[in-house]
Formats: sequence, structure tokens, C-alpha cells
Amino acid sequence: MKRALPVTREDNFPEWYQAVVDQADLAETSPVRGCMIIKPWGWGIWELVQASLDADIKRTGHENCYFPLFIPLGFIAQEASHVEGFAKEMAVVTHHRLKVVDGKLVVDPASELEEPLVVRPTSETIIGDAFRRWVSSYRDLPILINQWANVVRWEMRTRMFLRTTEFLWQEGHTAHATREDALEETLKMLEVYRALAEDVLAMPVVVGEKPESERFPGAEATFSIEAMMQDGKALQAGTSHYLGTNFARAQNIRYQSAAGDLEFCHTTSWGVSTRLIGGVIMTHGDDDGLRLPPRIAPKQVVIVPMLREKPEDAEVLAYCERLEAEIGKLSAFGQPLRVKLDNKPARSANKRWDWVRRGAPILLEVGPRDMASDQVTLIRRDKLRDGDKIVSQGILRSGFLERAPDLLAEIQANLYAEAKARLDGNIRSDFEDFEAIAAYFGAAAEDDEARSSFRGWARAPWARPTGGELEAVEARLKALKLTLRNVPTGRQAPLDAACVFTGRPAVEEILIARAY
Amino acid sequence: MKRALPVTREDNFPEWYQAVVDQADLAETSPVRGCMIIKPWGWGIWELVQASLDADIKRTGHENCYFPLFIPLGFIAQEASHVEGFAKEMAVVTHHRLKVVDGKLVVDPASELEEPLVVRPTSETIIGDAFRRWVSSYRDLPILINQWANVVRWEMRTRMFLRTTEFLWQEGHTAHATREDALEETLKMLEVYRALAEDVLAMPVVVGEKPESERFPGAEATFSIEAMMQDGKALQAGTSHYLGTNFARAQNIRYQSAAGDLEFCHTTSWGVSTRLIGGVIMTHGDDDGLRLPPRIAPKQVVIVPMLREKPEDAEVLAYCERLEAEIGKLSAFGQPLRVKLDNKPARSANKRWDWVRRGAPILLEVGPRDMASDQVTLIRRDKLRDGDKIVSQGILRSGFLERAPDLLAEIQANLYAEAKARLDGNIRSDFEDFEAIAAYFGAAAEDDEARSSFRGWARAPWARPTGGELEAVEARLKALKLTLRNVPTGRQAPLDAACVFTGRPAVEEILIARAY
Repeated sequence: MKRALPVTREDNFPEWYQAVVDQADLAETSPVRGCMIIKPWGWGIWELVQASLDADIKRTGHENCYFPLFIPLGFIAQEASHVEGFAKEMAVVTHHRLKVVDGKLVVDPASELEEPLVVRPTSETIIGDAFRRWVSSYRDLPILINQWANVVRWEMRTRMFLRTTEFLWQEGHTAHATREDALEETLKMLEVYRALAEDVLAMPVVVGEKPESERFPGAEATFSIEAMMQDGKALQAGTSHYLGTNFARAQNIRYQSAAGDLEFCHTTSWGVSTRLIGGVIMTHGDDDGLRLPPRIAPKQVVIVPMLREKPEDAEVLAYCERLEAEIGKLSAFGQPLRVKLDNKPARSANKRWDWVRRGAPILLEVGPRDMASDQVTLIRRDKLRDGDKIVSQGILRSGFLERAPDLLAEIQANLYAEAKARLDGNIRSDFEDFEAIAAYFGAAAEDDEARSSFRGWARAPWARPTGGELEAVEARLKALKLTLRNVPTGRQAPLDAACVFTGRPAVEEILIARAY
Repeated sequence: MKRALPVTREDNFPEWYQAVVDQADLAETSPVRGCMIIKPWGWGIWELVQASLDADIKRTGHENCYFPLFIPLGFIAQEASHVEGFAKEMAVVTHHRLKVVDGKLVVDPASELEEPLVVRPTSETIIGDAFRRWVSSYRDLPILINQWANVVRWEMRTRMFLRTTEFLWQEGHTAHATREDALEETLKMLEVYRALAEDVLAMPVVVGEKPESERFPGAEATFSIEAMMQDGKALQAGTSHYLGTNFARAQNIRYQSAAGDLEFCHTTSWGVSTRLIGGVIMTHGDDDGLRLPPRIAPKQVVIVPMLREKPEDAEVLAYCERLEAEIGKLSAFGQPLRVKLDNKPARSANKRWDWVRRGAPILLEVGPRDMASDQVTLIRRDKLRDGDKIVSQGILRSGFLERAPDLLAEIQANLYAEAKARLDGNIRSDFEDFEAIAAYFGAAAEDDEARSSFRGWARAPWARPTGGELEAVEARLKALKLTLRNVPTGRQAPLDAACVFTGRPAVEEILIARAY
């Protein structure tokens, strides 16, 4: 079975992932350790994700701002758990000048900063400092802001989009008068993320609360959306944090209540990043490359003229140009349909496969015969093959123009349905005890292959252990390369079920999985 | 004459500028030296500038990408003049970890990087490195890319928007087969910047080439748009550089020509930044605050209900809500009209002045009497006063709805015309010699005030001196705090004119001004 990528998902999932990133022209490694170059096709996807999410962030009452890239070292130290969580992995600016010594460019030792600056790994502290200045009365609350920014976390092992030293994200930060208001905000943005993942990226997720040990450093509660990749691993695709009054106490963010008392604000923060693109790849990609949900495809329809260096080429090209103009007048998902005529000088077959690998949802191939019968040859990227054969279909030009928006909606829905079936079909909950879970994930298997083959997730009764008891649970899981994902929202533990870890009565269920 | 700002332009222009930044709620200083916090109203302006320019950048065939924030020190050293131009002012990352020592958070000495990383002051070198990999044949050319990014230049004296350590910009980078193609690109993007400045920001500019001494480090030619601020100083508002083959030679960016030869690419780069917002302030602001051209006003129409804590308040509010919905259905400049009902609990008069200071183009005040006669009271920010008196006008609701888009276009045109008259009326060219120019700019004046009072620009015949001769010219100007701005495009030197500096026959004219 010849496929467009040099490696299949089954052969080697990590290599397949990297092959998609390369061959779909999404990104490439840079000479800077752990930092990537996002190429136009990858950036185009991110622009569409941004546009959709930005509209939702504004619709829910938030305003965008911009805060400094650098954070004074002293700020990081203000919130104790925050320090602990982040202290080990930051880029630190210590000097501000270079100079030439013996013909060589070096750091000028005389330019050492009095206080080192950290390149922001996240902005709670620098934004909290502004909140302190901005808030004085309950009338100033809530403060609802967001920024689109680059952040840096010095990662030892990096992987394109999933974990890079520099990445791009949005970070929302809000301050409220009460715990209730702040929690409502935290959950509202979690729902915005769920809708983004499911409705825009066609990536089904499980919404829930992270266990105590997986909280954001300094948070009272962390919620996440978790998506299942095609290797069965979980990807944390977005998080929303209720920070309680922890940062407010550390940074003295207080307001005067209506009653005249001075109270600490309750704050939240929430973010999603370019990691989402990694999620899209591992949710929808196949052995021919990427498959893009139409809502985030930089080009939704690509026209490839079948030119043969013959006189009729000009006519075919003219036909394609008219077609491009006609399609460009259509709308899909409430926006102008994004169409491209690929008329660069290259073999038609190469162009076809370039667009297949890049995941353009609809390919239209147009040759002299199509033109003669006023039709196009349509290839749907989500249903590319029947066995080994490429599925293409002749369709009247007028018929395509009529159907195109619906067809794109159908592809969007189809990709979602496929992933949703995979997620729902691969969360098992029929485990008697922890040993059964361990056995399922291949702890007993001698070979690495069994350990790492597709296993989906386990859902198990959970008594919500804390402190040392929780640490012991995590240690047992870690030995099996497993992690606690989240406690799905709105799901009850079975009656009388016992926690698989502690044996105590379960109060909820928790998801267990290998994870990125 | 009471005005809404505590200081007038005439009193103290720099303080007036800072007052606008503060009181229009555009930005504030941060605890990080030289870095500012851009607040929602300021960021909203930047988003509109970005959206407009981004569309033009794409329309002219460029694609957006994203390159790393960090540049290895060795890259900066590759292009010799580039080093010289930038070497003195960069943030340098030398370590990648913090640790706690004796309860104090410090930089971990063990985490020193083998090669320091510079926070990008501009990205020619890191992008050129990618071009080297991306280009092999003439068929790969041109490469036309752009990125929106933050950059850092360690500035000793900073001023909000105009010169900050971190700033936001777009930087376009292109590679071409020939000098002609690259020069055409350089000038095409210069024209895009001119159109942005004049048509979108309503800020008239002079387009021209910078003298050799003012070129971008490593460029063969640098072109700029120069705007005249209300204190007569020039603001370089955008630059476009033809880099020749300098960076290509330094970084080995070569292509195989159709004839089979290996040739160096000709590259360009061009950028505009958040500095543009400083230009907008100093072009359009008045003693009551900012005046925003409607095309970049985050809110074009603001409705202020005149509430008096009386029963009819609810009715007035409902009337305003209907009005907001009706206005929101209109279009202006081809986009949905941006309207806001300011219903926050504050005194109406305070709200009025907040929006005056922020520069919202149209204010609608609505009280019970307006409602009773189905009208609104309209205040145009561009024509706020007649003498000391605020000019407001009752207008039927239906009439306003009909006229609103035209009114916004009229305000946009009016702000441009006002600034254009100032620019055109304040470039003097009737100087006999350099002494006359020096005298005009107050070199002879004893007091600082005469030196710094409004003087506009001088335009003088220019023989295009180079090297040491040019250095001498600049030294003479520097003593008077004057600078060479650019050689306006398409303007001939008067017949037989002699260069005011060298006495040799002039080949063109050059602009001389104080500058930001």
C-alpha cells in the first residue's frame, strides 16, 4: 500500500508526526535550540484559529492588551508555588550590550543588568502588578483582559508544535470581586475552549478538572480540555485556572467593597497555544499527510489545472481562473470561501500530492476533458481513498458551485464524527482494580511494543486523594508511563464504587492515559 | 481657556504627548525599564492598523510566517555593517535556569548557554538563514514573506510608542533574482506604507530615499515615509530597504539561474511599528486629548446616555440600546460600523470627557428630551469647539443613521486635510545658504525656547555627498540638533541650484528637520 508519506502511523507514530509537519509544509526546525520556524501554511492555520478564538474572547467581554516580554526576576519570586512550578526552565536576560573584542562579537561584561530579566513563561505576575494599580473599588471589577503573545519555557526535549522553547498563545487574565464570579469566568472560558476544539478544529475533547497535583503553579483549581490522539495518548489542549486569592495576596490586588471593606480579588487565567496545531495533526492526519477541517484550512478549495504544455493549456487555465473567481464569491461558515488556483509551473501530479499532504479539504482537478463537458474532477481529502485507489468524481461546474459550502460543512462534520467515535470508543471503564488497568496498559508485557501500542484511556472511580496519598498514586502511574488527565465534568461515579487507588468510596471518576 | 488635558501643546509638547498617552488610556509605563503596557484602547488602534496593513501585505502577494524570538550571537556577526549598526543595544540571554539559594531566587550559574542568544532587534539574519535553505533555483524566487513580531532594542532614552525597548512591528523579508525585482519590491512596499499612513491614519507623509549615512545597517538603499508632527519635528514612520546582495553574500543565499549559473539573491526588508501610534497622537491630538481618524478608531460612534437616577432612565437606556443596534447594522469604510453604548455607572459629563480625551470620532449624547423628539445630540471630535464652547448639534435619529457613514468619511478626510495643510505649509525652501537654514532653526537664538519652537522643515538643494563629506554635513547639522530626513521622490532640484552644504551643483533636494 503506497502512501504519500514515507512512514505510516502504525509503523512509527512519532516519525509519522514529524513527516506530516515537514511534508505538509507546516514548520521546520530553526538554528535556535527548541525553537521552530512556522511556515506560511502552518501560520495560516494559526491565523484562522486566532481569528475564531479572538472573536469569542471579545464576545465574552474581554479586551486585548499587551504586556512586556520581560519580567523582573523579583516578580517571579512573589508567589511561592508559582516559583516552584516554573523556576527551572526560563530564558534569562542578564546583559544588554554586545561589543567587538579582537574582531569578535561578544557580550559586553560592563552591560550586566542590576536585576536579571526573565523572558515571560506566562504573565500572571507582571499582569497582576498592573491589576494592583488598576483596581481600587468594587466598581472597577471585573477586569477582563487577554493578550496574544510569545512565551518561552526552556524545554529539554522539544517536539514541533507540541513542546517548543518559544511558543505562541493567548493568555487571558481576569480579576473579580468574589470566588463565585471568578469560578464562573474560569468555566466560561473552558467552555469557549471546548467549542473552539470541537466546532472549529473538529477535535472532540473531554472537559474536566485536573487533580491537585496537576494544577497550574499557584492555582486553586485547574480545568482542562483533553483530546485523544490517534496513538491513544492524551493531549492537554487548553487550560483554565481559578487562582483564588493566591496571586492577589502575593501582589496585593485589593478592592474596596460596597460595604467599605478592603478585600482581595479573586483572579483567573486561561490559555491555549500553537500546541493546538499538533493536536489537529494527530487527530486528523492520515498516512497521506494532513487532513484539515475546512474551518481552519487556509485554502478550502484548491484548483489544479491539468496542463500538458499544449496549445489548449491557455484555455484550461482561463476556465480555471473563471472557476476560481466564481468560487471566491461563495461563502462557507459565514465567511468568504478560501480558494486557490495553483498555477505554478510544476507537474500536475506533484501539485495534487502537495495539496493532499497539506490537507486542503477539496481538490478540483481540471483538464481539457473536464472543460469540454463544463465539469471539474473533485477529490475530497477526508475520503481520499477506496482501498488503495484514489476516489475522484466528475461533477458539473454549476453543481459544484451550488454544493461547495455544504460539502465543506459535511467534511467538517465528517472529520469530527470520525474523531468523536475514536474518543468515545476508546475510553474503557470496566476495570476491577488498579492491577487490571496496569495490565491493560501493558505493564506486564515484556516488549516495548505492547507497552506503546494503541490503548486509549481508562476511566476509573476516584476518591480524590490529596497530599502524600496523591503523590503515591502518581508514582505508581509514572512507573507505567501513565498520568492522571482530568475528572470529567458532570459524570457521577457508579454507586458504591471504590477508588481503584485508595479503596475508599469513590466521589467521582478520573481519566488515566499516556500523554503528550 | 480650560481644556481637557492638564497641559497644552504650546506649553510643553513632550508633556502634552505623555498626557495624551495617559489620559486617552493608550498605554502606561511598566516595571520593566523602557517597556510599556499597551492598554485596550491603544491595542484596539494597533489591531486596526494591523488588519488594514496585513490585508495589503497579503494582497501584494506576501505570506505570513513566524521566526524565532532568539538569534544566536554568531548570526548577528555575519554581516559586518549590520553588526556595527546594531551591536550596541541588544538584550542578551545567557542562562536558561533559575534556582533557589538560601531562600532567594537567583540565576543558576550552571545553566550558562554555550552561545548567548540575542533577543531579535530585527530578523534579517535568522530569516536569511532560512532563505539559504529555501532557495536553490530561480524557480523558487521571489520569496515574499512577512512576520508580525515583537523586537527588542535596548534604548537608553525611551518614550511611549516612539522609542521603547520592546516594540511590536511587522517585518517583511523578500528574496529576488535581480536588482530590478528587488528594487521594485522595495518601492512597492514603500507605497503600501504611504497609503497606510495617508489613507488609514490620515497622516500625510513625504516619501523619499534616506541619505547614505541614515541607511539601515547593511542596506544598499533605504527609503522612508516621514511625517510632520505638530511641534514641527519629523517622525520616520516606516522604512523599506533594498539590501542588495549584502546579506545574501554574508549568508550564502544563492540560486541557480535559468542559464545554470549560481547567483546571489537580492533581498529586501521593510517594517512599520507601534511607533505609528505615536505619529497619530502627534499628528491629530489637540489640547483636549486624542482625535482618532475613524478608520483606526476602536469605537467610531459612542453613545452616552444622560441618566439622572430618575424613573425615565430606563426608557432612555432602552432608546440608546435600540440606537446602538441600529448603528451596529451600518457599514463605514466597507466594514461594520463600530459603535459602543457607554452604560457604565458614572456621571454622564465624566463619560463625555473620557471619550473626548480618547478621541472617539463621534459622540452621541441622549437625554430624555432627545428621546422625546426622537433625536440625538451629536458632538464631532474633530470639530469639538467653537472658541471655548463645545459644539453640539441636535439631529433626528433617522437623519443620523442615514448620514453616519458619510460623516465618518468626512471626519477622516478633514483630519487628513488639516494635517496635509500643516505639512505643505511648513516646508520652506527659500534658503540662500546653510547659514540661512541655521538661523531659521534658531542656532543664533540665545534662549532654548526659540531653538525648540515650531519651525517645520527645510528643503534644500543637495549634491548627494558621500563618505567623509557627508559625515561633515551631519556633524554641522547635529550641532543644531538637526537631521537629514530624506530625498523626496520625484522632485527635481531647481535648475542650476548649488548644494547648500558642498556648493557643488545639486542633483536633488533633501529635507532637513529636527526629528524623533
